[in-house]
Amino acid sequence: MIYQKYMKSALQLARKGEGLTRPNPPVGAIVVLNNEIVGTGYHRKVGCDHAEVAALKNAGTLAQGATIFVTLEPCSTVGRTPQCTDAILKAGIKKVVVSVRDPNPKHAGRGIALLKHAGVEVLEGVCADEGKALITPFAKWITKGMPYVTLKLGMTIDGSIADFQDGSKWITGAKSRATVQAMRRRADAVCVGSGTARIDNPSLLPRPALGRTPYRVVFDTNCNLPDNLTIFNDVHNANTIVVAGPDASVAKIEALKVKGVNVWQVPIENGRISLKSFMQKMGEFGVLHALIEGGGEIAESLTRHQLVDEFVFFVAPLLLGGVSKKSFAGNGWLLEEAPRLVFKQIKKSGEDIMIRAVRRNEQLQV
Amino acid sequence: MIYQKYMKSALQLARKGEGLTRPNPPVGAIVVLNNEIVGTGYHRKVGCDHAEVAALKNAGTLAQGATIFVTLEPCSTVGRTPQCTDAILKAGIKKVVVSVRDPNPKHAGRGIALLKHAGVEVLEGVCADEGKALITPFAKWITKGMPYVTLKLGMTIDGSIADFQDGSKWITGAKSRATVQAMRRRADAVCVGSGTARIDNPSLLPRPALGRTPYRVVFDTNCNLPDNLTIFNDVHNANTIVVAGPDASVAKIEALKVKGVNVWQVPIENGRISLKSFMQKMGEFGVLHALIEGGGEIAESLTRHQLVDEFVFFVAPLLLGGVSKKSFAGNGWLLEEAPRLVFKQIKKSGEDIMIRAVRRNEQLQV
Repeated sequence: MIYQKYMKSALQLARKGEGLTRPNPPVGAIVVLNNEIVGTGYHRKVGCDHAEVAALKNAGTLAQGATIFVTLEPCSTVGRTPQCTDAILKAGIKKVVVSVRDPNPKHAGRGIALLKHAGVEVLEGVCADEGKALITPFAKWITKGMPYVTLKLGMTIDGSIADFQDGSKWITGAKSRATVQAMRRRADAVCVGSGTARIDNPSLLPRPALGRTPYRVVFDTNCNLPDNLTIFNDVHNANTIVVAGPDASVAKIEALKVKGVNVWQVPIENGRISLKSFMQKMGEFGVLHALIEGGGEIAESLTRHQLVDEFVFFVAPLLLGGVSKKSFAGNGWLLEEAPRLVFKQIKKSGEDIMIRAVRRNEQLQV
Repeated sequence: MIYQKYMKSALQLARKGEGLTRPNPPVGAIVVLNNEIVGTGYHRKVGCDHAEVAALKNAGTLAQGATIFVTLEPCSTVGRTPQCTDAILKAGIKKVVVSVRDPNPKHAGRGIALLKHAGVEVLEGVCADEGKALITPFAKWITKGMPYVTLKLGMTIDGSIADFQDGSKWITGAKSRATVQAMRRRADAVCVGSGTARIDNPSLLPRPALGRTPYRVVFDTNCNLPDNLTIFNDVHNANTIVVAGPDASVAKIEALKVKGVNVWQVPIENGRISLKSFMQKMGEFGVLHALIEGGGEIAESLTRHQLVDEFVFFVAPLLLGGVSKKSFAGNGWLLEEAPRLVFKQIKKSGEDIMIRAVRRNEQLQV
């Protein structure tokens, strides 16, 4: 039970790094000697000390004979920073408690084997569910090369995301909107369709940002968006990516590039941006976790191509009915071919309801 | 605490009468002597013994000096049966424990006053929330002359009730469908639009019926439904009501009447059946509780006319998207005029979610 207490503290530390570590996973570590925490650390950013090293430095000589709790198996290879197994051995750590193994198939278990071989006691699987949840985006990216995709939709109980005049401000309540900001802080990229960008002119930055600068992605096949949008002109415009088709006007692309905005040209599939190509490019770019904030066309298309890992619906106690904008647009599905989900979590979110779901037959790893 | 235990038993008994007592409310009673139940009763059907009388008969001479628990204030006037206050006094009951007062403004408190005046001890308000919930439909009907209206919609998480080819069978799961059957058993009338009647050809009877024969109501402005529908031809067709406009073909109306089906002609408002006139007629007919099972036009129209007392959404983990049939049809609302609800209950229903809601600023009495 005491193991879980320390591991939970390590997990809490790790979460401070969420949204900051790409393309590394968030990791936390705690050094404990005689039932006292003598060192803490977490991975703050790619290139910075790994969590173990940070915690060992923090512990100093007290690490000698101590136990280290770490949310992810320590690395055993030299990457941007030296290997953590080496630091653990050098510090004289007696026991290593690990939540989950590194999902990277090249590493998985190697660090643990190396530590055991060197005579260090290793205990695995403490708070494994939370440990796994923490690195779900990284686990998908490192094994599939594609980001973990969360589709978020703020909608009415009758499944509408805007009224028939595109009115959509404040459909969901303050609590839900705050949760969305927290989701943005955990994401490496926040993506919207051109309609949302044009109508809402959002900054797509988390508020408060707390140091996070996720990529802002807007799909705009023909590069037709007005160049005065916030995402093209604020101080983070170098983090803005316009996803265009191969036939977009060279002049418009150049105009965006002059502003410092990134333009990705990806293939077209049935007249629309190939979302699979886009996701692969996101993966290559080091995006572990993409948060899609709509609208209905993107939601439908991602779902149809089975590119959504997790659906998060914020359902507001409102009706828009009739010809309002649907959460999932396009042609729709016949009942027998309808995408089937599994509701994984249902809870009140202020006056709204938050519902998390995954595709049926897909394992929820969160 | 012991009071609550006995009242809960009385409430449980009362519920056996739900869906059977119209236009009376369901009522249950328990006679307790020396901490032992010596008599039980409930109102089985209009014209039968009231709950108190049934319980007193069941107790016989043991009622002398006993306490009676009754879910609703005993009646003090002679109606279809003699007054209950009289029976209570004659039986020698020492104490009456009541959950709620009779909401009928002509009665409220009279029975209690009469009993007190005769020297009987009276305790009110035991399990008052449940007591009130039990008679919510009756309370609306007796004070407003209109039925309590529950709008039930089985829909996908994106707010669709059928795909673009009208496919709607098995959107919701077995658990939700069983709950709908229980809702039908509590209702006095089950109502659908002509589209639902035509496409699904439902019986609209609860399965199992357990003695319930709610009215089956179908809206059919021009009396155009095919005459081979189940509701026109099964053994309960005398309980079927077709709601037509004033211009419906006399020949068609007569043909339905020959079959034994009821046809109500109600005024038209903006080209559609006046739902308010219909509800008033339902009230006159002694319908306390109408369950509306869709489709989207009826749902929208009832909501627009503020005729829905309670929304019950069964939300299935499915997406239909695009041009599928919306839960609320018609022109829809602009965001600033959108009907605002309050979510009162959210729970898992098998793989679905059941959500109960009321209009904002309307008191939920259930």
